[in-house]
Amino acid sequence: MTVHIGVIGTGMIGQDHIRRITDVVTGAEVVAMADLDADRARQVAAGVGARALANGHDVIDDPLVDAVVVTSWGPTHAEYVLGAIAAGKPVFCEKPLATKAEDCLRIVEAEQAFGRRLVQVGFMRRYDAGYRAMKQVIESGEIGAPLVMHCVHRNATVPETYHSDMAVQDTAVHELDIIRWLLGEDIVSAQVIKPRRTSRRFEHLQDPQLMLFETASGVRVDLEVFVNCRYGYDIQCETVGETGVVRLPDPADVWVRTASHLRTNVLQDWKPRFAAAFDLEFVEWVASVRDGTAAGPSAWDGYATAVLSDTTTEALHSGRVVSVRLKDRPAFYGG
Amino acid sequence: MTVHIGVIGTGMIGQDHIRRITDVVTGAEVVAMADLDADRARQVAAGVGARALANGHDVIDDPLVDAVVVTSWGPTHAEYVLGAIAAGKPVFCEKPLATKAEDCLRIVEAEQAFGRRLVQVGFMRRYDAGYRAMKQVIESGEIGAPLVMHCVHRNATVPETYHSDMAVQDTAVHELDIIRWLLGEDIVSAQVIKPRRTSRRFEHLQDPQLMLFETASGVRVDLEVFVNCRYGYDIQCETVGETGVVRLPDPADVWVRTASHLRTNVLQDWKPRFAAAFDLEFVEWVASVRDGTAAGPSAWDGYATAVLSDTTTEALHSGRVVSVRLKDRPAFYGG
Amino acid sequence: MTVHIGVIGTGMIGQDHIRRITDVVTGAEVVAMADLDADRARQVAAGVGARALANGHDVIDDPLVDAVVVTSWGPTHAEYVLGAIAAGKPVFCEKPLATKAEDCLRIVEAEQAFGRRLVQVGFMRRYDAGYRAMKQVIESGEIGAPLVMHCVHRNATVPETYHSDMAVQDTAVHELDIIRWLLGEDIVSAQVIKPRRTSRRFEHLQDPQLMLFETASGVRVDLEVFVNCRYGYDIQCETVGETGVVRLPDPADVWVRTASHLRTNVLQDWKPRFAAAFDLEFVEWVASVRDGTAAGPSAWDGYATAVLSDTTTEALHSGRVVSVRLKDRPAFYGG
Amino acid sequence: MTVHIGVIGTGMIGQDHIRRITDVVTGAEVVAMADLDADRARQVAAGVGARALANGHDVIDDPLVDAVVVTSWGPTHAEYVLGAIAAGKPVFCEKPLATKAEDCLRIVEAEQAFGRRLVQVGFMRRYDAGYRAMKQVIESGEIGAPLVMHCVHRNATVPETYHSDMAVQDTAVHELDIIRWLLGEDIVSAQVIKPRRTSRRFEHLQDPQLMLFETASGVRVDLEVFVNCRYGYDIQCETVGETGVVRLPDPADVWVRTASHLRTNVLQDWKPRFAAAFDLEFVEWVASVRDGTAAGPSAWDGYATAVLSDTTTEALHSGRVVSVRLKDRPAFYGG
Repeated sequence: MTVHIGVIGTGMIGQDHIRRITDVVTGAEVVAMADLDADRARQVAAGVGARALANGHDVIDDPLVDAVVVTSWGPTHAEYVLGAIAAGKPVFCEKPLATKAEDCLRIVEAEQAFGRRLVQVGFMRRYDAGYRAMKQVIESGEIGAPLVMHCVHRNATVPETYHSDMAVQDTAVHELDIIRWLLGEDIVSAQVIKPRRTSRRFEHLQDPQLMLFETASGVRVDLEVFVNCRYGYDIQCETVGETGVVRLPDPADVWVRTASHLRTNVLQDWKPRFAAAFDLEFVEWVASVRDGTAAGPSAWDGYATAVLSDTTTEALHSGRVVSVRLKDRPAFYGG
Repeated sequence: MTVHIGVIGTGMIGQDHIRRITDVVTGAEVVAMADLDADRARQVAAGVGARALANGHDVIDDPLVDAVVVTSWGPTHAEYVLGAIAAGKPVFCEKPLATKAEDCLRIVEAEQAFGRRLVQVGFMRRYDAGYRAMKQVIESGEIGAPLVMHCVHRNATVPETYHSDMAVQDTAVHELDIIRWLLGEDIVSAQVIKPRRTSRRFEHLQDPQLMLFETASGVRVDLEVFVNCRYGYDIQCETVGETGVVRLPDPADVWVRTASHLRTNVLQDWKPRFAAAFDLEFVEWVASVRDGTAAGPSAWDGYATAVLSDTTTEALHSGRVVSVRLKDRPAFYGG
Repeated sequence: MTVHIGVIGTGMIGQDHIRRITDVVTGAEVVAMADLDADRARQVAAGVGARALANGHDVIDDPLVDAVVVTSWGPTHAEYVLGAIAAGKPVFCEKPLATKAEDCLRIVEAEQAFGRRLVQVGFMRRYDAGYRAMKQVIESGEIGAPLVMHCVHRNATVPETYHSDMAVQDTAVHELDIIRWLLGEDIVSAQVIKPRRTSRRFEHLQDPQLMLFETASGVRVDLEVFVNCRYGYDIQCETVGETGVVRLPDPADVWVRTASHLRTNVLQDWKPRFAAAFDLEFVEWVASVRDGTAAGPSAWDGYATAVLSDTTTEALHSGRVVSVRLKDRPAFYGG
Repeated sequence: MTVHIGVIGTGMIGQDHIRRITDVVTGAEVVAMADLDADRARQVAAGVGARALANGHDVIDDPLVDAVVVTSWGPTHAEYVLGAIAAGKPVFCEKPLATKAEDCLRIVEAEQAFGRRLVQVGFMRRYDAGYRAMKQVIESGEIGAPLVMHCVHRNATVPETYHSDMAVQDTAVHELDIIRWLLGEDIVSAQVIKPRRTSRRFEHLQDPQLMLFETASGVRVDLEVFVNCRYGYDIQCETVGETGVVRLPDPADVWVRTASHLRTNVLQDWKPRFAAAFDLEFVEWVASVRDGTAAGPSAWDGYATAVLSDTTTEALHSGRVVSVRLKDRPAFYGG
């Protein structure tokens, strides 16, 4: 049985997911889409033999659409996710679930009212082989209880429109989710330290940033975010436990010995680093949709990460340690 | 446009390719299959909603079948590949293309007579990211002209039915192809050296074996085949050029520090090592089929490898250096 | 010309230095020593054919003694270093230079009054090949201006007498010096974060600790000190610059593939990790002594590290960011 | 008690050993030396406060000389080593022990007649930490009985005077010794395969060469010798056993991430690679000399390696597999 998918938002990430559903995921097909830019929607739709509809709500309501992918402009996410829940259709929403924590809460409440999980948020790192292996090592007990985590998130460079808050909201947000997932607990406070800025920075940009988090059980996490590191895209993560340490590997590439060096390549952007994770994310999502439900990162994860993101942004602005104020996790979400 | 595929031979590897076409490759569907064991064919066919036919020729002749996958017992490969060529249908044939070099030649001639490439042989290593990166480094000229290659092919263990010739025909055959492909030239002689056998061996088995090859331009290759190395599945390859060396990486997995060791895992079989290569092989094959042709390892590669395999087996038996006698490569195959 | 050395304090570290001077450093000889435990002094002296004297001051004043090594109990260091300066003899003092910052200052003033450097403090990491290579990379400009440093200092375990302040004063003190040396600038503030404690801890011990430092130019440094990590002795250091990153290697040891793992050993204590550095430290010290002066880590470094150590201890106790109050560096010390 | 050493031959390697004995080894002193070039001997002797004597025999006979180092021109080694044995003095002889196998045998016989080991041959790799760790792993039984070894010996470049035989006699000779030592058995046959030559070669030079050896128990060893590999000095060794594999590490140096690469340095010559091994070799030799005997690589090892070297040279010339004809090992040498 082929799953028929409607896509809301046909910008770069939307097109990438459409390509993925069309070329990579078997048993799924994009049948309808919409975009603020109607011309773009028509063009992309034509490319895959789908229909371009007038707007996102038409996509949700289309009787041929089994499930919805929301890749529109962030501030519109909540509206479409709520619409999908109202229509009882599974919905995959790219991060953020909503730009405001209270909107995330409305989604969480609507989903509980519906009575079954319908929402998956696009935290694709949970599908990365390295993080999955790390989680397995942690859960095996081999390194004992986690005590400290060291994370690094470096990009070769960012465009001038990138501003300091985006280091939290667009960049660190991936770690905010993966830290919670790896440790299986919430983050309770955040602090942001501002190192000397790179002179390759834009005037307006605090880059790098050193973020510090504490979890409910007292694990301390440091995260270096450095989005103009020049040399490449580099994601590192090390979890230190009572009896051992587990660390992500560098991506495997051939080793070359020449001109007095032994070297391998550093990836230049996130696409090759997480391509397999994005693919698996959609393969698993389509499988869960076939069962009429959702299984990956939940609306609650979207909510928790939104609150955390707000808290960390506040910490960046204030220079102080800021506590995270989360609602109690409902039993519906494993609370 | 979905490509409809017929599969001849529904044993383990056949089932794996059926799963791959069904679950991994988009735009392709298995519609018919056959097996000597008719019950097995019916069972596998039922699992994917395809039809089980009486025999391989019925699969080839089925008007709904656009392209054929041959995964039957080796000695039957030639017959079915020739049948597919006669029917003008693209055919993917698992290695070996044929168990006798003269049968490979018949296929080569039939394909030339047909006038367009239809045959692809299942040498999947050409789709592995590591070997592709190595080929790119070699072709970039960065390490100069290749002079020496060091290869290792180790399996954790093999069943008792495995005998010494299989180290050449089933195991080393992958390197025979990849060496030719990496260096872009033919192998002209083979020698097999018999090291002290592992005491974990079966009485009948020469394990490990040290194979030596020379290419047309004089590159010397050593290949250790060790199929009961116990510790895991381990594929290594290093090409030494005039100004540098390029080497395959070990597969990336998390690094764990515990109990006074720093360690990572060694894979235990070939499936995870080459899963992505198998997937890509079929994705690219289906794409070429859609164009009505074939693009990967050719019937000529199948022929050359068959001759090489025979030569190396003779070298194993005789203990001498044996020359490879290949026909001249036709222009049809880039000769 | 053989340098004749007197040693004050013949405990474990004193004996190690005596062995080093005797067996490793050419052109130097231990001729006299003293210890509170006169029997021990006599015994150690007999072993190398030296004389045991009544006390440290006798060692300093001995006309046969060209230079002094102070490895006595920490609180006595200042007295003996000042004595050596008064006698105009070069003196190597194990860390700390003095247990109180004001005593370090008295030494700094005495040395300036003498008019030539006589004091070297035992910060041996500056002689480690890895740190030296890192400093070279930093100074080459290849990675641009440093912005962030990540450091890790892990011991397999410590005895029960070890208390939380020692994580700063005995353990982190090595990083306090090496950070200043690598970056060529002073540290201006310290903060200590207390992660969840290892359950393998002693009740009284905060382990691990996460220390944060800021340098004069704004470089931010995080340092994980974890002295009961169980798996081994592990020193890591990464300097992040504007255009690149340089990182210490893991110590080289053979790689073993067996039982489904690829592994190497982790060192179990600091001796093999820094043995070559200790040796080189003494070789270079003896060379400078032959010139009648001192060249390595200076009394000013001893003073700065003592102040930093006090500041960090205060930060550990208060939980706050504490500023480092250093005197202005005199021109005598390159200020 | 200081050991007084006489050195015969004050060329480059002789001077290096004189520096080592003077600056690195404690408890030893060079007191006399001689060289065909009397001026050079005088100059070097003056540098370390030793006496320059008329010839090597005067050095041996000098009553102040306790032990002799022979670093003269290869063809003169036998004469001086025999002279030292006649004088009953321990003698360290750089490789080769003698340029002719029969001269090695005369030394072996003279030493046996003397009744105590006096001769150590300069195979310094046995003192390398990596090879020692490899031997320990092999002897621990962890990887089972060795079956295959893969070795690589690459130099950045060699001068034009270097000819093809030197690849065996000067370069591979180090592996000839270390293979015997690691495996604890003799090599029984040799073969040399000639790959395509590097176009950066000199006309007269076969470079690289692929050497194959078989040991008494049937272990097969391949050794790539490539003395104009351009990129650096690179020594690799992997021993494959029945249940595992042990491999030398690459030398540890800092890792730099910059300009889209992750890289470390490759050493450019053998000095830094084996500096610690050379030092340890002399430290241990001086210790054995103090006991009036010799402990490292023996005259028998020198003889066996000379025969092996001749055999391999013959194999290079003939292109055939050549058997090694060694005398039976006397009980005196652990036969």
